[in-house]
Amino acid sequence: MKLDETDILLVEDSLDDAELAVHALRRERLTNNIFIARDGEEALDFLFCRGPFAARSFERPPKLVLLDLKLPKVDGIEVLRQTKQDPRTVSIPVVVMTSSKEEQDLVRSYDLGANSYIQKPVDFEKFRETVKTVGLYWMIINQRPAVHESRISAAQGSK
Amino acid sequence: MKLDETDILLVEDSLDDAELAVHALRRERLTNNIFIARDGEEALDFLFCRGPFAARSFERPPKLVLLDLKLPKVDGIEVLRQTKQDPRTVSIPVVVMTSSKEEQDLVRSYDLGANSYIQKPVDFEKFRETVKTVGLYWMIINQRPAVHESRISAAQGSK
Repeated sequence: MKLDETDILLVEDSLDDAELAVHALRRERLTNNIFIARDGEEALDFLFCRGPFAARSFERPPKLVLLDLKLPKVDGIEVLRQTKQDPRTVSIPVVVMTSSKEEQDLVRSYDLGANSYIQKPVDFEKFRETVKTVGLYWMIINQRPAVHESRISAAQGSK
Repeated sequence: MKLDETDILLVEDSLDDAELAVHALRRERLTNNIFIARDGEEALDFLFCRGPFAARSFERPPKLVLLDLKLPKVDGIEVLRQTKQDPRTVSIPVVVMTSSKEEQDLVRSYDLGANSYIQKPVDFEKFRETVKTVGLYWMIINQRPAVHESRISAAQGSK
């Protein structure tokens, strides 16, 4: 898989949860093009096309980011903040998918511009069902803008 | 129905589309508590608990706003802008649901903080199916923060 063809960026440090999510998405034939970032730093490098991902392009953003909050190195809230502050990445749908039930996480996520917030069900079957619905909604029903080069150049010029 | 128990605020000037959406949502038993605003001014009055809606409370926001863009009096983009700029209303999920295929509408909607953007299918059955999925996703899967009085008072103090 070419990284530029990534449909879903899954930011998840738990290998079990990542495997389960990927399995659910593939089973529904929603996509095979899933990239898993294991910490917040890797997610930011991926989204901002830098470091190991310097060959990626802002013109081909993922169609969806599924973002855990509790992550090594850089936490999910910081990934969300940076993604939603930058005109090059603001229109990428970010769905927070976390086991956190803390009200503060919900409030901060929406304040920072999260598109949606999902609580990971503990139950195996329910988790799979939730991932399936999330995938269907964001991959098929939701519309995203095409990414214009002019918009990206303008944003880069202002950096 | 008490207006404070509204689950979905449907902002739609076409009676046909509104009727179809309400029918789809009720058929799935997603909710009976739908309020239809026929123009952008009425939607803003509803969301900001003023005018005919002065008895409503910011503590009981709708769980979802389905927002058409082309509206009389105040257009949908302006409704979106005001809703996402105010801390009392920022965390209410706003799904733009429109027949517009204009790229500019997509870009502006996401820039202003729309949670999602749906294109109304022209086909009757597809429209019903889309409304059903949108309702299921936002009423059942998506999590919203509880609304704290302190947050609302703080925002009102700063006005």
